[in-house]
Amino acid sequence: MSRLLNPFQIKHINKTVLKQLSTPDLLEHLHFVKKTQSGLFQYLPLGKRTIDKLNNLIHSKLQNELGAIQLELGTLSSKKLWDKTERWTKQGNELFKLKDNKGNDFCLVATCEEDITDLMGNYIKSYKDMPFVVYQLNKKYRDEKRPRGGLLRGREFLMMDAYSFATTAKDSREIFDRTNDAYDSIFKALKVPYTKAWADNGDMGGDISREFHFVDKNGEDTLFECSNCHNTTTQEKTESFPLIEGQEFGDIDVRYALSNDHNSLICYYYPKNRQLNWNLALKAMGHDVDSNLKLLPNNKILDIFRNENHDLMFAKFIRVIDCRINTRSKFPGFPFKNYLKNNFGQIDGISIVNAIDKERCAKCNDGILKSCRSIEIGHTFVLGTKYSKPMDLKFMDKENNITDNYVEMGCYGIGVTRIVGSLAEMLRDEKGLNWPVAITPYLVSVCGIENNNASLTSQIIERLSFSPTLKDNIYHSFDSNSSLGAQVDISHALGIPLSVIVGPKSWPRIEIEVRRQPIASRESKWKDVYNQKKEEFDWEVINASSDKQLEKHIVSQDHAVSVIELLLKYL
Amino acid sequence: MSRLLNPFQIKHINKTVLKQLSTPDLLEHLHFVKKTQSGLFQYLPLGKRTIDKLNNLIHSKLQNELGAIQLELGTLSSKKLWDKTERWTKQGNELFKLKDNKGNDFCLVATCEEDITDLMGNYIKSYKDMPFVVYQLNKKYRDEKRPRGGLLRGREFLMMDAYSFATTAKDSREIFDRTNDAYDSIFKALKVPYTKAWADNGDMGGDISREFHFVDKNGEDTLFECSNCHNTTTQEKTESFPLIEGQEFGDIDVRYALSNDHNSLICYYYPKNRQLNWNLALKAMGHDVDSNLKLLPNNKILDIFRNENHDLMFAKFIRVIDCRINTRSKFPGFPFKNYLKNNFGQIDGISIVNAIDKERCAKCNDGILKSCRSIEIGHTFVLGTKYSKPMDLKFMDKENNITDNYVEMGCYGIGVTRIVGSLAEMLRDEKGLNWPVAITPYLVSVCGIENNNASLTSQIIERLSFSPTLKDNIYHSFDSNSSLGAQVDISHALGIPLSVIVGPKSWPRIEIEVRRQPIASRESKWKDVYNQKKEEFDWEVINASSDKQLEKHIVSQDHAVSVIELLLKYL
Repeated sequence: MSRLLNPFQIKHINKTVLKQLSTPDLLEHLHFVKKTQSGLFQYLPLGKRTIDKLNNLIHSKLQNELGAIQLELGTLSSKKLWDKTERWTKQGNELFKLKDNKGNDFCLVATCEEDITDLMGNYIKSYKDMPFVVYQLNKKYRDEKRPRGGLLRGREFLMMDAYSFATTAKDSREIFDRTNDAYDSIFKALKVPYTKAWADNGDMGGDISREFHFVDKNGEDTLFECSNCHNTTTQEKTESFPLIEGQEFGDIDVRYALSNDHNSLICYYYPKNRQLNWNLALKAMGHDVDSNLKLLPNNKILDIFRNENHDLMFAKFIRVIDCRINTRSKFPGFPFKNYLKNNFGQIDGISIVNAIDKERCAKCNDGILKSCRSIEIGHTFVLGTKYSKPMDLKFMDKENNITDNYVEMGCYGIGVTRIVGSLAEMLRDEKGLNWPVAITPYLVSVCGIENNNASLTSQIIERLSFSPTLKDNIYHSFDSNSSLGAQVDISHALGIPLSVIVGPKSWPRIEIEVRRQPIASRESKWKDVYNQKKEEFDWEVINASSDKQLEKHIVSQDHAVSVIELLLKYL
Repeated sequence: MSRLLNPFQIKHINKTVLKQLSTPDLLEHLHFVKKTQSGLFQYLPLGKRTIDKLNNLIHSKLQNELGAIQLELGTLSSKKLWDKTERWTKQGNELFKLKDNKGNDFCLVATCEEDITDLMGNYIKSYKDMPFVVYQLNKKYRDEKRPRGGLLRGREFLMMDAYSFATTAKDSREIFDRTNDAYDSIFKALKVPYTKAWADNGDMGGDISREFHFVDKNGEDTLFECSNCHNTTTQEKTESFPLIEGQEFGDIDVRYALSNDHNSLICYYYPKNRQLNWNLALKAMGHDVDSNLKLLPNNKILDIFRNENHDLMFAKFIRVIDCRINTRSKFPGFPFKNYLKNNFGQIDGISIVNAIDKERCAKCNDGILKSCRSIEIGHTFVLGTKYSKPMDLKFMDKENNITDNYVEMGCYGIGVTRIVGSLAEMLRDEKGLNWPVAITPYLVSVCGIENNNASLTSQIIERLSFSPTLKDNIYHSFDSNSSLGAQVDISHALGIPLSVIVGPKSWPRIEIEVRRQPIASRESKWKDVYNQKKEEFDWEVINASSDKQLEKHIVSQDHAVSVIELLLKYL
């Protein structure tokens, strides 16, 4: 027995099979991950490397650009903490729950607002201890009822979660902005189209939040951008107006809801050909709506209202009318008779349906909305005192006063495994995966046939290893029986940006094939770079003449490292 | 608002308090970890850094010296797999168990033999795919009934677990040896006394296993080494003989047990002043003992035996007699009367009690045993086919035959958080913690008073940052109000090996204080090194004259990096 082997080595690529596989299946086929059950994955060496690259990118930007401090919270979180914020039993939390041998209740962390607020209570004493941002990058757990899309929505997934602590709302907002800047820096490094949208804070709480999305035609989310003010919002946050109000005379739909005290019946009226936007519906009522009934059908809502309001003399009725329809439109029949007309209220002139393309932006009241499909990859929140209050996290101010000085918090998430899954989906092509340089498991592969030129490939590998950038980033785990073409196919399928092809014919020149498309901005500088070095490097370029052909660089092996490093800069 | 702060900054050291704290409390006091519940910890930035240093050491040795391949298995492991190996309900496994929303059973991984064997079944087809070693370094979970010793025995802890796969027992044993070599390389890098002992495979199964231990007088384990053959074994594995056999005439104790079929009553007789060694007791009976009854008292064992064997004519009695006593010693009364004398068996001349110092080594039958106290930090196992058989992991051999070709496995663990906790305990002194260079959160601190010489400390920090070794390893997170002495105390308490003290008086010379004791082998080379550079570096050494005083180096700031790097080499 001599060398230990790599049991995950890819020995052969069948291009027809590659094309037919869904992206989750492609990631399994190429030995990046292995699904064990719905939403649960084992990360194989290639997948682990890809994830670790993304982790390192996030660590470096958060630490060096933002000044965030890394820690690591436990996986097991106590029910006692979640009871304080009333999130233990909250619908949609989908917590994995368990008991220890003493009967104590725990969940597997899905998010850590409770744990971090509790922890920081030990270290925050006075205003002098803030502001700061702490973060961790580890596994989170959510018992999704319908895990889907492979790594896009797993039950066990990798997430970066950061938390900010400040004495004032102003500072908190400033940290929020700075964190968004650090996010920009992370996502820009991936060199893939992304955008950010103002979003609804939803269950997380707080007033301001922003989502980061990859722009992708197959994405499951929809964002809207205004042609005039360029305000970008998530669909649930987008308030739109029709080009002309009250002109919708088609059928009208109604959706019932109850106020928090259940004394008012709220009737949302909107065009039948549109979708009610629950977030806008809530906002129209100043959030005085019992959200727990959100999923009940209309007749159940009416039953509850009838049961709890036997005397309709004391009940109230609020009609919320979407601005697309007018009072002369054909409304559905009203389900009650014996009520007082005086108890009727009406809200109109507002929008309570999902926006569609070419409507008017409600923010600037001028531009036209345009939608795009997208994949959410990060979310940032100003939380205010939503968690510090119930968990009693206070600080002493300059006057040695502590009463009501609740800490102003923010929280920030990045879906790490989700990003890897999204990039696989967005960038794959007929050749296989195609990773951004920032997270590719290997920067370069070295392909060569062992029989003839083992010593040549070893020479090249050794040479490349002298470069600190390339060292530990060279893939050469090919089967000794693979042909040169098969090796290149494997390198392409694994999504490695550059392949170095070594052959006795061209030696001492080698061929570098560019799998990943160079960025557009390269062109302005590239010619100069090339012309300057062309002769010194004995460097010839064969440009891609069709979509299927790849750009190739033939260059003296002495200068392989220089050319590879130059190429990587512009990928 | 400008710079973000570090909420975990240590502002003040009270030496009296430090001395009084237990090590787990000291780690909390100095903001390395925070305990949330028994056996559960949050890792704060200093703790996280220390752990990550150890992780990096382990990664580098396993990958570069052994050729192991890193992957990452999930936290949630399916009951279906554990049922195959009958470990789901095994006593002592202390699994955290939970159900998902569909009612499927999972445990949080305590160890991953089941998962890895199942996973590798997808990739092992033929003998050509082996041998290999895969490993992961992540959290494991064990619902300990009595978690203790802080990080030494947590319920959520960090563990490196490696698994080897080979076609033959010979190859498997060779990988076992190579992995032990890589372990040696890891533990040697810590420069702390450690040893390895042959151990019992216990519940893990297989035939050969080795434990790695720190040698520490407060350790909870006991190891024995033979003065002649130097065989080292764990207490449960140590077979010892008295200097003269059969000379123990004191009181004799008996311990009852039942054979696996419950038809035989086993009576272990041994000196009352000694402790029965259950492992040797099992071995004496060729493991035909029902281990599930291990914790029952004698009278319960007898009750079971009576209930299941109404007719004593068919029952058997086996007397296992420790070699320290003889048949003429005073035995306790026998609890049965109506039995056949023919149904009696006897095993004697063997050792079934825990060894003590100065007894004879049963292996070479010549040397004298000497014990030491220790802390277990790693364990390696040859597993044979213990897991591959029940999980049906087979391979095709050269003759295309697959029947009965079960994969030969090994497994290997290192307790990462346990090592950090042990080193804290073993190396702490009256000044606080004292980390080995290989895992210290920072290699060097820079202490200086901001008012007078902020620019001087910044200059030094900048200079040290040019060294790739020191960059990212410089601690200077001191409170601006701390005195120089207070800063040095903090550096000492945090266990940082070197403190650089910057002051306007000595400038452009700086003082380097050596917190960590230089290794013994330094002395032979040090004088030459020093004499060679003394003048060039403007370098003066003040040796430690007492235990409380530290070695100091006063050197021109231009050469600070060189001297620091030299010093670190020998710490």
